[in-house]
Amino acid sequence: MDKRTGLPVVGMIGAGQLARMTHQAAIGLGQSLRVLAADRDASAALVAADVQIGAHTSYDDLARFAAGCDVVTFDHEHVPGEHIAALAAAGHRVFPGAEALLHAQDKRVMRERLGADGFPVPRWRPIGSAADVVGFADEVGWPVVLKATRGGYDGKGVWTVAAVTDAAELFDPVSHEARLPLLAEERIPLRRELAALAARSPFGQVATWPVVETVQQDGICVEVIAPAPGLSEDHAAQAQELAVNLATDLGVVGILAVELFQTDAGLVINELAMRPHNSGHWTIDGAVTSQFEQHLRAVLDYPLGVTSSVAPWTVMANVLGGDPAAAIGAAAMGLDERVHHLMAAHPAVKLHLYGKAVRPGRKIGHVTATGSDLAALRAATADAAGRLRHGVPAERPQP
Amino acid sequence: MDKRTGLPVVGMIGAGQLARMTHQAAIGLGQSLRVLAADRDASAALVAADVQIGAHTSYDDLARFAAGCDVVTFDHEHVPGEHIAALAAAGHRVFPGAEALLHAQDKRVMRERLGADGFPVPRWRPIGSAADVVGFADEVGWPVVLKATRGGYDGKGVWTVAAVTDAAELFDPVSHEARLPLLAEERIPLRRELAALAARSPFGQVATWPVVETVQQDGICVEVIAPAPGLSEDHAAQAQELAVNLATDLGVVGILAVELFQTDAGLVINELAMRPHNSGHWTIDGAVTSQFEQHLRAVLDYPLGVTSSVAPWTVMANVLGGDPAAAIGAAAMGLDERVHHLMAAHPAVKLHLYGKAVRPGRKIGHVTATGSDLAALRAATADAAGRLRHGVPAERPQP
Repeated sequence: MDKRTGLPVVGMIGAGQLARMTHQAAIGLGQSLRVLAADRDASAALVAADVQIGAHTSYDDLARFAAGCDVVTFDHEHVPGEHIAALAAAGHRVFPGAEALLHAQDKRVMRERLGADGFPVPRWRPIGSAADVVGFADEVGWPVVLKATRGGYDGKGVWTVAAVTDAAELFDPVSHEARLPLLAEERIPLRRELAALAARSPFGQVATWPVVETVQQDGICVEVIAPAPGLSEDHAAQAQELAVNLATDLGVVGILAVELFQTDAGLVINELAMRPHNSGHWTIDGAVTSQFEQHLRAVLDYPLGVTSSVAPWTVMANVLGGDPAAAIGAAAMGLDERVHHLMAAHPAVKLHLYGKAVRPGRKIGHVTATGSDLAALRAATADAAGRLRHGVPAERPQP
Repeated sequence: MDKRTGLPVVGMIGAGQLARMTHQAAIGLGQSLRVLAADRDASAALVAADVQIGAHTSYDDLARFAAGCDVVTFDHEHVPGEHIAALAAAGHRVFPGAEALLHAQDKRVMRERLGADGFPVPRWRPIGSAADVVGFADEVGWPVVLKATRGGYDGKGVWTVAAVTDAAELFDPVSHEARLPLLAEERIPLRRELAALAARSPFGQVATWPVVETVQQDGICVEVIAPAPGLSEDHAAQAQELAVNLATDLGVVGILAVELFQTDAGLVINELAMRPHNSGHWTIDGAVTSQFEQHLRAVLDYPLGVTSSVAPWTVMANVLGGDPAAAIGAAAMGLDERVHHLMAAHPAVKLHLYGKAVRPGRKIGHVTATGSDLAALRAATADAAGRLRHGVPAERPQP
């Protein structure tokens, strides 16, 4: 408890943009998020008052961090499970707990559990060798999707291969054994990708937001449309039920994001995250309660907030760092000047910059627009994101 | 310019709740507000990463603070004008400037200027002695309103008197000379109080929000309704024009709040503030661009954001510190427990706590609700504010 405010202290391990936006929400709740950052220039460390420097892989650093916190939570899934379990054994409240979080850390554990509990998942197989891939493809057909069981994000750690030679670097050239823990999945003939977001408190209260469509390019989410256009009420309810049932089944506390494939045969679960998620950034401007505020409410065991939308449509576009190789002419414009141009062109677009150094393809921010004309919102957010990325108006992507 | 982010640094002198909420808005713009705080426990110092400790009355502290800032602005009006002018002379960008700000610091200067420029103000007179009060009352009738020309807020520095003996403490008992600079105003037969908010950039761009009704109790604003119910389009447009014209006439940069009396004869200007203002707190949840983001855009000379409402009605209720003398039973509930009860009862109400120690009558936070049923929103916010103040449901005030 913070004696100055009479309110509990929430600590977040990791200081990326999710911690940054969680701190922004914490301010309204009378709090100040404590963050464990690798360095002072981390996205959240630039804006939070209560920063400790340390490594999320060091138990000593974690224990020192947890000491003054009423509850500890995460900005990412990379804290070793044994450390989380040890913190809990030492009496700290840590949400989500190690057992739940394992299902967001290890894709194999997640698929085994979800399959056993009857949730819709793609056909998959653990892969120990190149021969395993061929054997799996003989059953489900090429191409297949290979995934590292741990550590992947934003298209990293995922390989879609039409033949085992496409993934030669994953296997030892002599023994043909996998060089890292892998699994293979059938490639789902998907119509589009959706995401369902839920929050759950220790008390067991659960809340979900409208189901969204996520648009990917090169494995990176570039656009989120809330709610998913044309999604039937049945499918929307089914996706929300999946998120609620998964959160309850796995004992999640905090936000659970469920990435889904929509296929002709129905919904299939792709991946899980147990933290505020890119597919929920739209809620800052587009919902009564944002995922960041809700995550705080959940880990504090506060009653959850209303999740309804404030407008018929909300569109979020990620801002990716531009390619310096293309930095000529207008593209050499500094970020501050790009912000000027964006604001002049789109006075109703909401800007969220993460204070991160620009690197090609890195998420450095997002923009959001709310309203009733979906096509106009998509055009505005795509153009706004393009202005921040390239310094010049981007071509509008085809919906 | 912050080399880590490529974005300019805004410094705010003062670290109260206005700086706290400005920092919250700055995070979205990729920035981190630098604040000059009197101490580490100040409302904004609890949440901002970039805090300098110093006195707003010390030019040395101000100059040291301004050194690393691209632009300096204010959380309050108490910085001496000569210090502001000296900072500007030393080459710092300070908004609003000393000349403009003087009209928010000195009520006499403001009334002289506004009267000369043809704006509607109450009849008033500078007061040097008790006899001046009597002379003024002979013209306008009792009661009259006495005001300290500097330093008043939240009902402090304002005395409504039916006879000069009601304000005996303001005058020397022997000489009858005023003990502080005073002015007297006619007591306006008002229907209600309104507020018009404008933002202006150095470039000269101006934006206004919907005009609101402010409800006062004991000289303190307790509730703001946006837009003001039943206000005619003519009066709304007139109030917005007043704010725009005043901002332009006085050369304001940043937010200008104009407190207005609505009378049978029309609108009359009461007070001015040149900073984010209590009457604009509703914009965080109720408008596309909040007053805090807009203040940052304005002082940075960024293009201003859209000011339209996100819902038909937004109601804001201030949360005042409770009276410890009444702290029995449920009232002894800690703030954390009060927050639990508030969230359980009102999951759609948005909470904004300032991290300030509870003192009777002190503004420790505010709550907001948006929607289409004004009576329900007023009831919900009044009940929510009462739960935070008293720890038990408050009686609903009569609209």
